[in-house]
Amino acid sequence: MGIEEILSRYDRNSITIATACSHSSLQIFNGIRKEGFKSIGIAIGTQPAFYDAFPLGRPDEFLIVDSYKKINEYAAFFYKKNAIVVPHGSFVEYMGADNFLKLQIPTFGNKAVLEWESNREKERQWLEGAGLIMPEIIDDSKEIHRPVIVKYYGAKGGKGFFVAKDYEEFRKRIDKTKPYIIQEFLIGTRYYIHYFYSPLKKDGYRVRDGSLEVLSIDRRDEANIDEAHRLGSISELEEMGIRPSFVVTGNIPIVMRESLLPKVFEMGKRVVEKSYELFGGIVGPFCLETVVTDQLEIKVFEISARIVAGTNLYISGSPYADLIQPGLSTGQRIAQEIKMAIAEDKLEEIVT
Amino acid sequence: MGIEEILSRYDRNSITIATACSHSSLQIFNGIRKEGFKSIGIAIGTQPAFYDAFPLGRPDEFLIVDSYKKINEYAAFFYKKNAIVVPHGSFVEYMGADNFLKLQIPTFGNKAVLEWESNREKERQWLEGAGLIMPEIIDDSKEIHRPVIVKYYGAKGGKGFFVAKDYEEFRKRIDKTKPYIIQEFLIGTRYYIHYFYSPLKKDGYRVRDGSLEVLSIDRRDEANIDEAHRLGSISELEEMGIRPSFVVTGNIPIVMRESLLPKVFEMGKRVVEKSYELFGGIVGPFCLETVVTDQLEIKVFEISARIVAGTNLYISGSPYADLIQPGLSTGQRIAQEIKMAIAEDKLEEIVT
Amino acid sequence: MGIEEILSRYDRNSITIATACSHSSLQIFNGIRKEGFKSIGIAIGTQPAFYDAFPLGRPDEFLIVDSYKKINEYAAFFYKKNAIVVPHGSFVEYMGADNFLKLQIPTFGNKAVLEWESNREKERQWLEGAGLIMPEIIDDSKEIHRPVIVKYYGAKGGKGFFVAKDYEEFRKRIDKTKPYIIQEFLIGTRYYIHYFYSPLKKDGYRVRDGSLEVLSIDRRDEANIDEAHRLGSISELEEMGIRPSFVVTGNIPIVMRESLLPKVFEMGKRVVEKSYELFGGIVGPFCLETVVTDQLEIKVFEISARIVAGTNLYISGSPYADLIQPGLSTGQRIAQEIKMAIAEDKLEEIVT
Repeated sequence: MGIEEILSRYDRNSITIATACSHSSLQIFNGIRKEGFKSIGIAIGTQPAFYDAFPLGRPDEFLIVDSYKKINEYAAFFYKKNAIVVPHGSFVEYMGADNFLKLQIPTFGNKAVLEWESNREKERQWLEGAGLIMPEIIDDSKEIHRPVIVKYYGAKGGKGFFVAKDYEEFRKRIDKTKPYIIQEFLIGTRYYIHYFYSPLKKDGYRVRDGSLEVLSIDRRDEANIDEAHRLGSISELEEMGIRPSFVVTGNIPIVMRESLLPKVFEMGKRVVEKSYELFGGIVGPFCLETVVTDQLEIKVFEISARIVAGTNLYISGSPYADLIQPGLSTGQRIAQEIKMAIAEDKLEEIVT
Repeated sequence: MGIEEILSRYDRNSITIATACSHSSLQIFNGIRKEGFKSIGIAIGTQPAFYDAFPLGRPDEFLIVDSYKKINEYAAFFYKKNAIVVPHGSFVEYMGADNFLKLQIPTFGNKAVLEWESNREKERQWLEGAGLIMPEIIDDSKEIHRPVIVKYYGAKGGKGFFVAKDYEEFRKRIDKTKPYIIQEFLIGTRYYIHYFYSPLKKDGYRVRDGSLEVLSIDRRDEANIDEAHRLGSISELEEMGIRPSFVVTGNIPIVMRESLLPKVFEMGKRVVEKSYELFGGIVGPFCLETVVTDQLEIKVFEISARIVAGTNLYISGSPYADLIQPGLSTGQRIAQEIKMAIAEDKLEEIVT
Repeated sequence: MGIEEILSRYDRNSITIATACSHSSLQIFNGIRKEGFKSIGIAIGTQPAFYDAFPLGRPDEFLIVDSYKKINEYAAFFYKKNAIVVPHGSFVEYMGADNFLKLQIPTFGNKAVLEWESNREKERQWLEGAGLIMPEIIDDSKEIHRPVIVKYYGAKGGKGFFVAKDYEEFRKRIDKTKPYIIQEFLIGTRYYIHYFYSPLKKDGYRVRDGSLEVLSIDRRDEANIDEAHRLGSISELEEMGIRPSFVVTGNIPIVMRESLLPKVFEMGKRVVEKSYELFGGIVGPFCLETVVTDQLEIKVFEISARIVAGTNLYISGSPYADLIQPGLSTGQRIAQEIKMAIAEDKLEEIVT
């Protein structure tokens, strides 16, 4: 049974919204509540106690599963609840890409985006195809004439990277038994821009038939790289046997120079347009992970094609979202989009 | 006359709340006001003018004293006002620990906690006893095989520390005429977690007979260590004759990776439980000062057993507090606890 | 026709407020809207599309001009609209100082301040005259015995600076064909304090006949200096051929240690008083750009005599502004000042 058929049997007057109990779930449950929907928290093994501390971020109901990988086995439960799943980064990671693509439960956004963000070549085809500037790839390690970041394939969670200043350093560090990629190290300041694309909204900053928003911006805080300087420079640390790592531990709020906003919107617009050209479109929240150089160029090193944890800073609005609706969060915005789709009988357009 | 007897004479329909004019007083006065109490600002010498700029953070009344050390001399004034003192870090520091312990005015929280946070051995007994991971102590300086922080006894206000990478550097720097302690330098990113324990609240995240909350998280901003990298690495600075220092000058907002929250609550819970075992319990706000490693371990280097200045960022709510009650600050939460205790005739349980 | 005469012909019941579409314009338009005025966005060439994404930060009307330098040519339009211009940093920069001083349109604040902030000697005369501590000037490069920042005259936008640790390094770097100035490098943590001086407000923190406020504090985020440490120390970067630069790309929220507030207000007060002594006074928002040392001294390296972009973080209030009026932004505060002046028939006192 395809998702459209499942959806066609849903009672659109009693839609519930579900997500996995991690990542940005407090914000999502809070946003769902603000828009008047009921929510379901999916958790492993036992009901997480910490939600008790946050009555406004607590789901209305929990579904306890053995493993995120087996969520399809609970499909009947979701159907009975007329449930739509909101996927976030941890949800997709816990399920595994393959399982996620086979998910038999209506899911907010376009599942097809996953392979375009998780495959480095496809991601580059998408973003460079949209005219964005990405870090250069260095094919021949002898051509390392400026700082590079070397990533082993399948590197995850902020490890499996290293930084090299030149060929000499690369040679010393590289483990040639593993496949890797050499990228230009982008020099500047990092901004993680939280976009939202609605194919339904008919006013605002128009892109195709819909509307593009910027809801907030954050900077990821990464252990140990972001506080390493309190002890010494990267190379001094390496001498002490401490390797820099890039594991996200939290997020810091930030705003970007206003004169960059036209470029920011233009970039988002082209990413959306290209997504329709390549794979049927991106719907809902996405994040461009950028470095702004001292030439005020915006370079993009990655895209996240769903809600990012940096939005957790902005559970009650942000300097950008407040100019759309005071107090608006990305979690709430997702719930609004589902509400709008229900009202216009267009759930099929935002759910796959 | 003991505090209980003093309290028994208080008119519980006209309780006022007092604190010293520094640290987090704007937030505390603001929170008191929001909950409908009258407030008293204790200041030295003259009435501080800057409160005039903040009508919503101004105390209703000032008490001008010669010295915080002599506050007991003003006890009659506080009794007449049915006043409860909210102690913050500066208040305790200005009074001195001995005077604070002898304070004859009803004080929010358990005064006994002071010796357990200010004495390094007792602090370690408490926190390690609660199962928290603290920086290792290195007894023999010859065993310094990784970065350490060396603290002279009685070091205060971010000075009297130094960092050493190995024994060689330690030997060069150490002043052996002063007693010191050698600790592992924690490598990761810093999160200062603002907890609140209520022995009265009967719902939420239950700990013993009460309830534990996380109201917000900040990162301290320290001169000169946090911006030293704009000039050079720590060792380059030392060559220029500039020693790293750790003097708190302000605070930056931050949120933590959501998947760490179960651990965060578990840690807070055990700290509370152990406090009851050791000294009758911790009541109200406390802060665990942590480093998150790239293994996503949370290590704790210190506890502050009362309101910390990092909560000043969140005078109108935080990404965590807003999930309890939109706009809630720690200052306001303290006032709510006093209100609840009055309503339930349990002031004795939260005041010493 | 002088500004006073122009103002005298304005219909004070239908004042509109205009600013250039950049810098802090979203906040200004938002603040104007909150106070019930109509707004005009001045833009070059075409109407910027990104405002469509922010309905609460969009001006009511656009004026499209060829060049900011020629705004006087549109004076009749502004007069017809009874328009007052709010100048921000980009507006002044785009117009050029000379054109700005000749602007024939009523402008919020005292235009005369411009030459006192843009001329380094005058700025120093003003701030040191007000008793502020500024970085020392080193006249003889041979006397460089601690870190200095060397600025070429006319350096702009975060370039044309370099840092030198000693005479040796200075000699290696300096381009003696260009005029330059050698300043002490301030060591500590940076705080950009957002003040507002109202000559009209009769309560609050009194300065002269008016009132001084602190609305918020931020830290500028500069490429590439603020994230360079992720790659290496400044000197390591220089070896890689990467020069540190100080181009503002965004802003981070921050609060300052509360015990510094008396000093902060005292400093602002003296800056205002001195401004009246020197050039008729500063009106509205200004920013002291400071470094707090580990001695808790506040040193000032620059003043911005109008709204700064760091206030964009605080479009819905700040930990300071919320103690004046919950949700207050600097943009809104400007609109309030204009409203107050209209009500009291004192526009001439705040407009030049």
